[in-house]
Amino acid sequence: MFTTTITPRFGDVDALGHINNTVLPVWFETARNPFFRIFQPDLKIDKKTWSLILAHIDFDFLQELTIECDVEIRSSVSRVGSKSFTTLHEAWQNGKLCVRGEAVLVHYDFNIKQTTPIPEHIKAQLSEHLV
Amino acid sequence: MFTTTITPRFGDVDALGHINNTVLPVWFETARNPFFRIFQPDLKIDKKTWSLILAHIDFDFLQELTIECDVEIRSSVSRVGSKSFTTLHEAWQNGKLCVRGEAVLVHYDFNIKQTTPIPEHIKAQLSEHLV
Amino acid sequence: MFTTTITPRFGDVDALGHINNTVLPVWFETARNPFFRIFQPDLKIDKKTWSLILAHIDFDFLQELTIECDVEIRSSVSRVGSKSFTTLHEAWQNGKLCVRGEAVLVHYDFNIKQTTPIPEHIKAQLSEHLV
Amino acid sequence: MFTTTITPRFGDVDALGHINNTVLPVWFETARNPFFRIFQPDLKIDKKTWSLILAHIDFDFLQELTIECDVEIRSSVSRVGSKSFTTLHEAWQNGKLCVRGEAVLVHYDFNIKQTTPIPEHIKAQLSEHLV
Repeated sequence: MFTTTITPRFGDVDALGHINNTVLPVWFETARNPFFRIFQPDLKIDKKTWSLILAHIDFDFLQELTIECDVEIRSSVSRVGSKSFTTLHEAWQNGKLCVRGEAVLVHYDFNIKQTTPIPEHIKAQLSEHLV
Repeated sequence: MFTTTITPRFGDVDALGHINNTVLPVWFETARNPFFRIFQPDLKIDKKTWSLILAHIDFDFLQELTIECDVEIRSSVSRVGSKSFTTLHEAWQNGKLCVRGEAVLVHYDFNIKQTTPIPEHIKAQLSEHLV
Repeated sequence: MFTTTITPRFGDVDALGHINNTVLPVWFETARNPFFRIFQPDLKIDKKTWSLILAHIDFDFLQELTIECDVEIRSSVSRVGSKSFTTLHEAWQNGKLCVRGEAVLVHYDFNIKQTTPIPEHIKAQLSEHLV
Repeated sequence: MFTTTITPRFGDVDALGHINNTVLPVWFETARNPFFRIFQPDLKIDKKTWSLILAHIDFDFLQELTIECDVEIRSSVSRVGSKSFTTLHEAWQNGKLCVRGEAVLVHYDFNIKQTTPIPEHIKAQLSEHLV
């Protein structure tokens, strides 16, 4: 599991007084940096070497999030397939699970525009974070 | 079905040259304005009168979106329940369906902090957009 | 002058009930598309051919913007220099000027990493929008 | 001076490979939380008690920011007036000052819709961060 701490900001709060839903995809993407680094340690984004595309994301809003204290994003892996894997993200605040969501990432070669198998040593690293 | 036209902007394009995934939740939220107006015609957002909370969103990324031409968001209703309903959104560009997603909206009374039945006349209006 | 119509969305409204300040940089960037197209008609963003970098932006918040109706962004050019130019953007709602701001764009060759003169025929096109 | 550490995310990087300009207003707003807490220690945003509105923001882009390492936002106060004050924000990465900007915040009573003097004890606290 990787942990990312987020400080909510004024404009993340919508007119009903809670963190707006569209903020969560941004926070969960930030929380995928450690997974991206397994594939690309320096995090340089270049079509010649970058090898992931996003196929799906979803979000379940369980409790309201507020600006008043930091949010902890807990990220793990819920599935490792041959050419894709799924990350699981949870946003916690004040000891409560507030938002839960997954992202499906596909291993892809931008040079030949095709999905490609995830190398075994990377699968092993991803599997360390399996829940 | 409601149609919303979006002009992509420079910063919506990420380092791989396509519209970033986190932009779609924003576009689909914009596309929910016509549904919000069924409940609150003037779109004034106030806890005393606003009656919807978001319980779930998901997105399937089928084709890449680019900045080069406008995107059409087609929005309809995929389910009308007693206390909640589901909107369906499709992002089309150049005649191709690029992203598809749903949102579950719950009818809620912020004064008593409880879910409440959707009035029949509103259900009827939502049902006009059922697919 | 170029005109861009923007439909505000639910999450653009912050906890004080008005469009959050960080939304305006996004809207004004969208409104720069027509200027970008003078340099790059197909709007393809590629370091080999793209020739603009942003040096400065500013925003004066004069009146509150709400979600209740569309916003018109009026964009013109306030300065054409030899290697840079300045765009001027105004956000109007309900007949009122609500936000005013400028952006300084520098003509730049990413291949040699140097500023370069704006070609005369492009200066002429930009000057058509001078105020 | 207050320091805020930001981890850039995949979608903050635009098609030219650097952090997009519209991300900085968001980061600098996050960096204003400690100033907001001087006025409203619990950071609860409510028109009855919140007392600040934003009048102006500007940004000078001096160096490119990348996703590859964290960004430090250094925030101070550049002016304390009778009814408003100005915050100064600098984004540093790899020992380089990359973006510099200011924000003008006006002390405002939302109940009577008028600007009001900043109390002396708050002026004193703001002045501790004057540069």
